[in-house]
Amino acid sequence: MGIIVQKFGGTSVADPQKIHNVANAVIKEKENGNDVVVVVSAMGHTTDHLIKLAKEVTNTPDSREMDMLLSTGEQVSIALLAMAIQAHGHKAVSMNGQQVGIVTECIHSKARIVDIKTEKLQKKLQEGNIIVVAGFQGVTPDGEITTLGRGGSDTSAVAIAAALKADRCDIYTDVEGVYATDPRIVPNIQKTDVISYEEMLELASLGANVLHPRSVETAKQFNVPLRVRSSFKLDNLGTLIIGVENMEIYKPVAGVAADSSQVRILLSNLPDIPGTAAKLFGALAKNNISVDMIIQSLANNGTNSIAFTVSEDDLEDAIATLEAEKEITQSAQISTDKDIAKVSIVGAGMVDRPGIAADMFRSLADKGINIKMISTSEIKISCLVDKDKANDSIKALCKEFGLETTEMAVVKGDLPNV
Amino acid sequence: MGIIVQKFGGTSVADPQKIHNVANAVIKEKENGNDVVVVVSAMGHTTDHLIKLAKEVTNTPDSREMDMLLSTGEQVSIALLAMAIQAHGHKAVSMNGQQVGIVTECIHSKARIVDIKTEKLQKKLQEGNIIVVAGFQGVTPDGEITTLGRGGSDTSAVAIAAALKADRCDIYTDVEGVYATDPRIVPNIQKTDVISYEEMLELASLGANVLHPRSVETAKQFNVPLRVRSSFKLDNLGTLIIGVENMEIYKPVAGVAADSSQVRILLSNLPDIPGTAAKLFGALAKNNISVDMIIQSLANNGTNSIAFTVSEDDLEDAIATLEAEKEITQSAQISTDKDIAKVSIVGAGMVDRPGIAADMFRSLADKGINIKMISTSEIKISCLVDKDKANDSIKALCKEFGLETTEMAVVKGDLPNV
Repeated sequence: MGIIVQKFGGTSVADPQKIHNVANAVIKEKENGNDVVVVVSAMGHTTDHLIKLAKEVTNTPDSREMDMLLSTGEQVSIALLAMAIQAHGHKAVSMNGQQVGIVTECIHSKARIVDIKTEKLQKKLQEGNIIVVAGFQGVTPDGEITTLGRGGSDTSAVAIAAALKADRCDIYTDVEGVYATDPRIVPNIQKTDVISYEEMLELASLGANVLHPRSVETAKQFNVPLRVRSSFKLDNLGTLIIGVENMEIYKPVAGVAADSSQVRILLSNLPDIPGTAAKLFGALAKNNISVDMIIQSLANNGTNSIAFTVSEDDLEDAIATLEAEKEITQSAQISTDKDIAKVSIVGAGMVDRPGIAADMFRSLADKGINIKMISTSEIKISCLVDKDKANDSIKALCKEFGLETTEMAVVKGDLPNV
Repeated sequence: MGIIVQKFGGTSVADPQKIHNVANAVIKEKENGNDVVVVVSAMGHTTDHLIKLAKEVTNTPDSREMDMLLSTGEQVSIALLAMAIQAHGHKAVSMNGQQVGIVTECIHSKARIVDIKTEKLQKKLQEGNIIVVAGFQGVTPDGEITTLGRGGSDTSAVAIAAALKADRCDIYTDVEGVYATDPRIVPNIQKTDVISYEEMLELASLGANVLHPRSVETAKQFNVPLRVRSSFKLDNLGTLIIGVENMEIYKPVAGVAADSSQVRILLSNLPDIPGTAAKLFGALAKNNISVDMIIQSLANNGTNSIAFTVSEDDLEDAIATLEAEKEITQSAQISTDKDIAKVSIVGAGMVDRPGIAADMFRSLADKGINIKMISTSEIKISCLVDKDKANDSIKALCKEFGLETTEMAVVKGDLPNV
């Protein structure tokens, strides 16, 4: 007998029939002998509909009023889910962010949770209730309604699990779990049974958007075991995400991901003066432009060249920022390359096993794939390749590191976008 | 410079364009130099839509969860109206029932307001805000969300006006004010400029459903001047509803109404024993059956007959209740008459002017209308007539008591249902 926190997204509660399906999943966990808190998002397209309404009223809606507006979406779904659970003969009670006491900073539209009150939750659980909590929302100490921004409902669920010291937080999604790479590219990819927070964070930030990094960060911080599982196949255990220290065995490479949304900027003919790089990247940081991979090299003629990647969205700003640093860049050439993809392998097991990087480079070379840049971290190695070689790279790396199943995987539901 | 509370119903905020119209009406009052609190209902058919959703989930939705669900409707409209007011360049802030502190009993779906906190309202007004408050909803001391039931938003507005000691509470509706009778029956009926709470209560309970009696009761209790006015004709002052002690001149008859929803029950051949009536009406009261007009008469043979009216909805229960009182009714005959209408004249001026009743009876007799029963109160005289004579009765009485205009009234918008 423990406490399980469950989270269901908007598509899982999109209509009354689906709400009954969720009620069944919730009740199943309750009948396993657990106390259950279930966090839900707004139904289907409710949030989009509300945003559209606001835009029809004004092009520049106030963020406080947007939060008042959007927070109604989850309140509708929690009330309906509580009704559905009751209709199946179980005690249930819905609670919005204010009623639970999900206390946040007063930053509208992207507030961070600072505290979760557990008194009311504990009391309602002790009374035998299944508690249905509105995700994505909170309240400031002053009583202002806030929303948590992207990935908000996942974060609500994980934070509540942390506050209640829950045994597990189950995130129900359209997919059956976490895959080592996008199954649309490698159809016989293995579903991952266990993965560490750190690996998941690297994969999430690379674009495997099953879980928002923020919720994984929170789970890691409070050591909440997370399970990503399918709302359509309740018997499927999905993927468990835990601390690497709790993992008994793990593969050197847990996942392979590609990111085609970056652009390479090449600055050549830079003066070879100490502090050049610091000045340029300082200016970029000041303008909130995240730089990913960086390579600096000294040319024969005593000039420097620096290549780095930024998000496509930041390209214009980045160029403007660089050009504004005239004393450095006026005599340099700035060129850009959009035809790139970053292919990464992620694995907590890399630390102990030298040679993984070499295996990666060789397997790409065997396929005739040219590596333009390389960057590495503790648990990740990334290579920049031509954009049209991204899928071939993923296939080669999955094969190299044994991430394929022997049978073709049967993949159901929507796949994560990579 | 005073405080004005305004209330707009669901049809007034049914879409973004209408919300902007309401914003204009609100701003107009603000620019007159007043502090403004505006109470709104849910947009158009939102509440119906939410009820439908709940019914799709379960046939017997829990009333607590229904309140969670329905209270979102007003929260959507207050956020959008606040945005619209801001778009017109004024400071505005929306507040739901919980944020204001509209404290109610914990009776879901029909809670009564027990207290309204004014600190936050006063503070936001002092900061120069127009405050947009969610009508129809409140919160228990325990943080449970409640709704106020029928006429709830009007009651919210009046109660807030009372708590803030506002100068006036303006209820904006589809009609231009209160009419002395249904303009569909008497097209050249006068709009009433001033009417007393007491008269309005009698008219409201008779079916002139511009205002719910509950909101008029609250206004009377706290002596809040109420104005019923049109949301489409902002220059039209509508009808002012105040205490009779504040009225300088008033007509003997302020309004004429008809109610065709009652049924007459006739008990004849009752034993003439003291306590018979007390027993019968006691039994009806015990079963929550409201009895309206009552006549008792002694027949020549020493038996009693009692006639009274009840609502059509209560007829079956009433008959069952009467038959259960066997020792009284076993030898009596029970007959019913559905073919009746109650026609009433209402006027605070009746008290001082004898002869009004006689004028009423004569004017009905002149038209060949037979009176089946009569009941009177301080400010009301009601006659039971054949149902098909109801409209003729109203016409005759409006003419008799000078309630018609010399010109045909031009009536716009939806008319109150009688």
